[in-house]
Amino acid sequence: MDTALDHALPRKDYFPAKLHSAMRHSVFSGGKRLRPILVLAAAEACGQRAQAVMPAACALECIHTYSLIHDDLPAMDDDDWRRGNPTCHKVFGEAAAVLAGDALQTFAFELIARVPASASGKDRGRLEAIRLLAQAAGMAGMVGGQMADIVAEGQDVNLPILQYIHTHKTGRLIQAALLIGGVLSGATASQLKALSVYGETLGLAFQITDDVLNVVGEMERMGKNVGTDSARGKATYPALYGVEGSRTQARRLMERGIQALQPLGQRAEPLRVLARYIVQREV
Amino acid sequence: MDTALDHALPRKDYFPAKLHSAMRHSVFSGGKRLRPILVLAAAEACGQRAQAVMPAACALECIHTYSLIHDDLPAMDDDDWRRGNPTCHKVFGEAAAVLAGDALQTFAFELIARVPASASGKDRGRLEAIRLLAQAAGMAGMVGGQMADIVAEGQDVNLPILQYIHTHKTGRLIQAALLIGGVLSGATASQLKALSVYGETLGLAFQITDDVLNVVGEMERMGKNVGTDSARGKATYPALYGVEGSRTQARRLMERGIQALQPLGQRAEPLRVLARYIVQREV
Repeated sequence: MDTALDHALPRKDYFPAKLHSAMRHSVFSGGKRLRPILVLAAAEACGQRAQAVMPAACALECIHTYSLIHDDLPAMDDDDWRRGNPTCHKVFGEAAAVLAGDALQTFAFELIARVPASASGKDRGRLEAIRLLAQAAGMAGMVGGQMADIVAEGQDVNLPILQYIHTHKTGRLIQAALLIGGVLSGATASQLKALSVYGETLGLAFQITDDVLNVVGEMERMGKNVGTDSARGKATYPALYGVEGSRTQARRLMERGIQALQPLGQRAEPLRVLARYIVQREV
Repeated sequence: MDTALDHALPRKDYFPAKLHSAMRHSVFSGGKRLRPILVLAAAEACGQRAQAVMPAACALECIHTYSLIHDDLPAMDDDDWRRGNPTCHKVFGEAAAVLAGDALQTFAFELIARVPASASGKDRGRLEAIRLLAQAAGMAGMVGGQMADIVAEGQDVNLPILQYIHTHKTGRLIQAALLIGGVLSGATASQLKALSVYGETLGLAFQITDDVLNVVGEMERMGKNVGTDSARGKATYPALYGVEGSRTQARRLMERGIQALQPLGQRAEPLRVLARYIVQREV
């Protein structure tokens, strides 16, 4: 995955060097690569070679990285550290961080348009993948969730708002990663349905687990300030259901997600392993 | 044009309302709509109905507006006013402005993916349009130019750097608007070549004229602080060639651009009128 991203992105000394250095700083700062792995695993679950959808996998990581760069900005979450590394704006300044995020988003769409035509069988698959990515990343997806989260800060959280924030801020992009892997592999309607349900439950389980880890984790293991979400009065599951209640919900969602994969058979085994990892992880 | 944008964008009270209000604030703040008009005029020059490429025209305006919102941020140009209106971050705050810009960029790609299939004849045209837009807007285009401009601030400007900034910061997107109108209309290679040359010269003429207006314009007519570029030591044509020398260059470029339109015949007349307007405008 890192090799593919390394090949896809311009060298850091490419003009203007500050832009490409800033983009690379954040892309290669120890991410788990969950979203691109989901693209590859979904493609394999639908009988496609992982390599054929690699540009789309890179695209998902570019979108995710852009969102982290902008989230960390002083005007947003104002985080100086992420995964134990100084954030993009701390190293390159705010202006370069805004632009590096902007460029990573643009590049994501360029990458999907570049998926070899053989992978999708026809151009329609790539167009559908672009539509899915735009809907999941934009105002009706990730950015909408981020905005709702900011507006909700310091306010009383109720369950519908909390669910909107969670499903949109992280859930939609995770679900889109799976569907994009599917549509680029010529998946049938029932295969896409399975990926869609699995993606929805996985996304929510992932966010709940993240919230739990934010509460119980330790500074050293997370590589970022722990407990900052609740310190800012952010809407979280543990705040509503407590740590144990939240863990139980995440496990239930994981089981439902795994069950949904049945139509995909044995080839979906990596997706099952991923679901278990996501709710059991400790970082 | 405004009607199409109004229909395309969600209502401003759509949840989360702050996001959609911020997006609409900047999209409907008196822009000249140059880029979308170029998409429509290029399509007509290639024998296509303007209405068929309207979503792509809206997409270009979304990309342009997103770039203005982010450019105006305190971390970037720190402008409080644009076209006589308070800028997005002044009205909605920095976080909302970052997100509104992000969402407008994403939406642009969604819009092109949505152009009716009948317009492009096949999906290939839409994919090609997405590639053109991404390349023109991203690190090798507009964002690259913006970064180079920031790095150059306060430094000695030389002509190669100045040309890089101008062709990338504004030129590439203007050229892409024309090529997108072309590829979505099934343009021939020679038609695309004509649009490409016209677009390149027009983009540069536009930027030179902008620089000149920035020097000689008046606060009231521009609706933004005049002379701010040179105050910040920014790389501009008038700084290198003076006002009259710059005007002459802009006119020469316009003539070359008009000449390039010859293969398109009579249907390219609106593009010729636009070229003259662009170098003669006073706002």
